[in-house]
Amino acid sequence: MTFEEARAQLPVLERLAYLNAGTNGPLARTTIEAFERELERDLADGRSGTGYIERMLALREDVRSAFAGVLRVDPSRIALVESTTRGCATVLTGLGLTAEDEVVTTDQEHFGLMGPLYATGARIAIVEADEDAMLAAVTPRTKLIATSHVLWTTGRRLDLARLKADSGLPLLIDGAQSAGAIPVDVGDIDFYTVSAQKWLCAPDPAGALYVRDAELVRVKTPSYFSQDAYEPTGAFTAKEGAARFDAGWIGIPQLSAIQAALATHPEWRYERAAQMAARCRELLEPLVEVATPPGHSTLVSFRPSGDPAELVAALHERGVIVRELPGRNLVRASCGWWTSEDDLQRLADGVGA
Amino acid sequence: MTFEEARAQLPVLERLAYLNAGTNGPLARTTIEAFERELERDLADGRSGTGYIERMLALREDVRSAFAGVLRVDPSRIALVESTTRGCATVLTGLGLTAEDEVVTTDQEHFGLMGPLYATGARIAIVEADEDAMLAAVTPRTKLIATSHVLWTTGRRLDLARLKADSGLPLLIDGAQSAGAIPVDVGDIDFYTVSAQKWLCAPDPAGALYVRDAELVRVKTPSYFSQDAYEPTGAFTAKEGAARFDAGWIGIPQLSAIQAALATHPEWRYERAAQMAARCRELLEPLVEVATPPGHSTLVSFRPSGDPAELVAALHERGVIVRELPGRNLVRASCGWWTSEDDLQRLADGVGA
Repeated sequence: MTFEEARAQLPVLERLAYLNAGTNGPLARTTIEAFERELERDLADGRSGTGYIERMLALREDVRSAFAGVLRVDPSRIALVESTTRGCATVLTGLGLTAEDEVVTTDQEHFGLMGPLYATGARIAIVEADEDAMLAAVTPRTKLIATSHVLWTTGRRLDLARLKADSGLPLLIDGAQSAGAIPVDVGDIDFYTVSAQKWLCAPDPAGALYVRDAELVRVKTPSYFSQDAYEPTGAFTAKEGAARFDAGWIGIPQLSAIQAALATHPEWRYERAAQMAARCRELLEPLVEVATPPGHSTLVSFRPSGDPAELVAALHERGVIVRELPGRNLVRASCGWWTSEDDLQRLADGVGA
Repeated sequence: MTFEEARAQLPVLERLAYLNAGTNGPLARTTIEAFERELERDLADGRSGTGYIERMLALREDVRSAFAGVLRVDPSRIALVESTTRGCATVLTGLGLTAEDEVVTTDQEHFGLMGPLYATGARIAIVEADEDAMLAAVTPRTKLIATSHVLWTTGRRLDLARLKADSGLPLLIDGAQSAGAIPVDVGDIDFYTVSAQKWLCAPDPAGALYVRDAELVRVKTPSYFSQDAYEPTGAFTAKEGAARFDAGWIGIPQLSAIQAALATHPEWRYERAAQMAARCRELLEPLVEVATPPGHSTLVSFRPSGDPAELVAALHERGVIVRELPGRNLVRASCGWWTSEDDLQRLADGVGA
């Protein structure tokens, strides 16, 4: 697939320099076609019967396998959850943390991780988003390191293999800004949760949770999909592997659209996205202070000379879509494999104006 | 709106005697149009920017109000959750039950209640789905009565006002088979969770949770929508009222479709649904043993003379859609306001054949 062919799947790019996959990615025509085809079928044929349920269950496994393909892991280690927030909550509630336990995290995490982490009642050690600082914060009471792979704020990428190897601790990773954007190697990581509506360009919300060993986590909020069999007491035989953490029903239209979305990405996606992020920083560096370290991710966060919100609004007027990071005095551009030189020129022209 | 006009909204009824709203309701053309309109907009315009987020937030409040209208309560007591399973889990995890606490429930509950209840670790007293038996099971250690309003198996309706008044305990009610099917008066009930994809004919999954007093329940799995403000530690200021229990992001297409679906129901819906359920039982009683007590709900469960699965398959061949209740030797027909005399005759003809 050529760049032009691949990009042509995404109609929003015909008009806008859409640089906000870090919030929600551009949608492909085939994704929406899959969604609408199944909505029409539900409308005409109804949503029940043995065949309907079997088809829904088969589609769940297809989608599970597609997520496994993104993370290059076995599908038996993938749970279907609708968001990284749910993925984090599933692990954090299931670990049974108490006020005696400590969790090391950074000062750059999204509420989707921090909210559920705070709710566990564990002691939280918050440090700079830096491997040395994080490892130094580990104590004998530390039960978990919970952090992003790519920080949603600055776009810095953490060295997860080092955090794992040097701490020996379980790692819970928020992959909202990594999966689909950069190659991910889960290696020995225990828990890795991803969004699909961002870099994987799926309908919102959609996501998955990788769990290396399902036996290490209790199922605290089981769904019907968590079990193979249950007794009148609610006692249940958990499904094999990570499927026991499936969050709940996903409609056939949504499943079909996720499946279609995950099939739209060309083989060269990571190389090109990295190139475009590098090009973005090259164009912006003469104009503003770029906060993202080079070579880390597909986000390019920068500190404008004026008010970030005003700049985002002015760029929007020019058809350039980026976002502000409130309270941090940063504007963030998201560069995907679909990003063109022209998109970036439009951004630079707007920032320079 | 006449019966013919109202029924004409639901294309599946043109061909099928669709009697399975207890699983998923028939969809209206306007519901799918709203869904597709917003999918097309997302495709063409992208899914971000201040205006986009503001519109999404406003739609959430519209949908919250629409659910509040179904339950005739204040919208401040409604949380948006995607399923009754999530609604039950939200309350059960938030109550902080321990192994010292007891919960009274029935032997006729769905796994969506029983799974999360079992996962709390509380002692579960399981009794016959009968008000006397339930009240007799209450002990000084009982912290909660958790049950369905209408049992998904037999269609029996429980007297919630009596359970509340005579026990004085908090009640958690699974309203999957009641909301949209029969008039619901939450009265003094503490927690009441509803499905929207069943009797309210919304896309799947969709639902809500009524919480009378949000201060009585901890937010154990907060979403971004749970808070008005948060600190780097994850400590957060919970939203006023039940919105703090909102489960997470819902896409604009889905929100628009839920809103459209909740607007399709005629004023006379409850009267007509009750009439059609009575008519259904009248037609079936000469043929099979009807398990549902008269006047209780819009479900009509019956014990066929032969194998239930075979009967369901044979009815499907005739274009009559009902479901089996595995392990209970029951077949269940769901009668909505949209059900016609002809639908019921087709069912009776198939059962009698």
